[in-house]
Amino acid sequence: MTPMMTIEQLAAFFVEAFPGIATERHAGIVEIAPGRVRLRLEPDDASLRPGGIVSGPTQMGLADRAAYAAILAHIGPVAMAVTSNLNMSFLRAVEYAPVMADAELIKLGRRLATVDVRLWQDDPGRVLAQATVTYAIPG
Amino acid sequence: MTPMMTIEQLAAFFVEAFPGIATERHAGIVEIAPGRVRLRLEPDDASLRPGGIVSGPTQMGLADRAAYAAILAHIGPVAMAVTSNLNMSFLRAVEYAPVMADAELIKLGRRLATVDVRLWQDDPGRVLAQATVTYAIPG
Amino acid sequence: MTPMMTIEQLAAFFVEAFPGIATERHAGIVEIAPGRVRLRLEPDDASLRPGGIVSGPTQMGLADRAAYAAILAHIGPVAMAVTSNLNMSFLRAVEYAPVMADAELIKLGRRLATVDVRLWQDDPGRVLAQATVTYAIPG
Amino acid sequence: MTPMMTIEQLAAFFVEAFPGIATERHAGIVEIAPGRVRLRLEPDDASLRPGGIVSGPTQMGLADRAAYAAILAHIGPVAMAVTSNLNMSFLRAVEYAPVMADAELIKLGRRLATVDVRLWQDDPGRVLAQATVTYAIPG
Repeated sequence: MTPMMTIEQLAAFFVEAFPGIATERHAGIVEIAPGRVRLRLEPDDASLRPGGIVSGPTQMGLADRAAYAAILAHIGPVAMAVTSNLNMSFLRAVEYAPVMADAELIKLGRRLATVDVRLWQDDPGRVLAQATVTYAIPG
Repeated sequence: MTPMMTIEQLAAFFVEAFPGIATERHAGIVEIAPGRVRLRLEPDDASLRPGGIVSGPTQMGLADRAAYAAILAHIGPVAMAVTSNLNMSFLRAVEYAPVMADAELIKLGRRLATVDVRLWQDDPGRVLAQATVTYAIPG
Repeated sequence: MTPMMTIEQLAAFFVEAFPGIATERHAGIVEIAPGRVRLRLEPDDASLRPGGIVSGPTQMGLADRAAYAAILAHIGPVAMAVTSNLNMSFLRAVEYAPVMADAELIKLGRRLATVDVRLWQDDPGRVLAQATVTYAIPG
Repeated sequence: MTPMMTIEQLAAFFVEAFPGIATERHAGIVEIAPGRVRLRLEPDDASLRPGGIVSGPTQMGLADRAAYAAILAHIGPVAMAVTSNLNMSFLRAVEYAPVMADAELIKLGRRLATVDVRLWQDDPGRVLAQATVTYAIPG
């Protein structure tokens, strides 16, 4: 599991592939390592939900993006990979502050890739949400 | 399972509870019936993903919102209900056009509510994505 | 979605395909209808868990079998179809008594099939557990 | 996250709590460590499915048991903890040979505990199936 893309290449891919999202609103790619990627999201107003916390859909979007980043980093910029299943457990409230997402490839097959994603804020060991995300990779 | 809120009351609640989202970007509430709610989302640029289809996070956000609407319609405006688990299967591509979400309460308990949500566009019987969403309801 | 197998054919298939399971311990196939199958399981001692209720693994096995039955009933006896994902929400205790499983095909594709399964005992509307099961169908 | 039970105590609990399962058919508890438990299952005839591989329900039962073991090892023998959600991705065929299950506590709350479980045979890094299991702990 050797990465094939640099942080700069992957960031440029996301900006180009999702023209409807302002560049500064993309989650930042903090690290790419064998089998792993770390992203960092700065929440904005649209992420807020009652209670002053970060909404579920914002967390799901981040987890999905982290899984996509982990896969593309290892197979190259295959834009047409699509999510086939996402399961997410919301464990603790996410404060209105930057959120980290650690994505780990569990299996990278030719057709399907499955990724474990964990969200955290202050301490990687205090997991705020866990997602298992499966992507279908076009043949 | 008798609804306690009208479409107008629920729509007004969402606008007030999520001030960071422009009013016209909220999913429309099409119908409230015993044990069920139907929402309709008009996708915007931020919903697009490569291939010209509606992104996974947009679909997840819609499913989460539909589940929340189904619960609140039946217990009243308890803003602090939070998603505890969401599992979503993406079955077919969602075209860049309005998306419907049918939410059905499977169990409405005092502490937990579980909702089945199905997304479709032209035909309710041709399901594009299915989600099972569990909310925790504060005591 | 027209069924291709009768109850008798499907029951005979299960007995032959799973020789390690005594015939009388297979879940009974109660009904096959377009897009749907109903199974009935008589729990045995190995199904018991503390509290005198039916164990989670027993419920998961039943849901998985009901999904498999729904698929095979509509595509014929493709033994090598395998579960690729199962998500199950356990909503209420299952008493130590016969359990019904209603399986509904949500999508029957060439490669993947997704099935909604609901367990109940006295009343089909009082769902005890809900599962979404995806099978991979060999090409 | 300090374990409160030894392997011997936990094994004895399982035999007593599940009298319908023969002692030698329980998954063996190989290791208890802070936040983690490892189990080992010797499949039997009832675990076989077409293709000579270990069935999905057998894998789910093992994952559920591993999660339960991880929780009890850290909170003591609370028999009435019950599974509230299980999501499992089946990634590779499981050969008809002993199967290992590594369970890691992601969150151990007062009311809910969430556990990541990974099944493997020869190499812990070659994951055959991944499960996220949530248990409800009685108050």
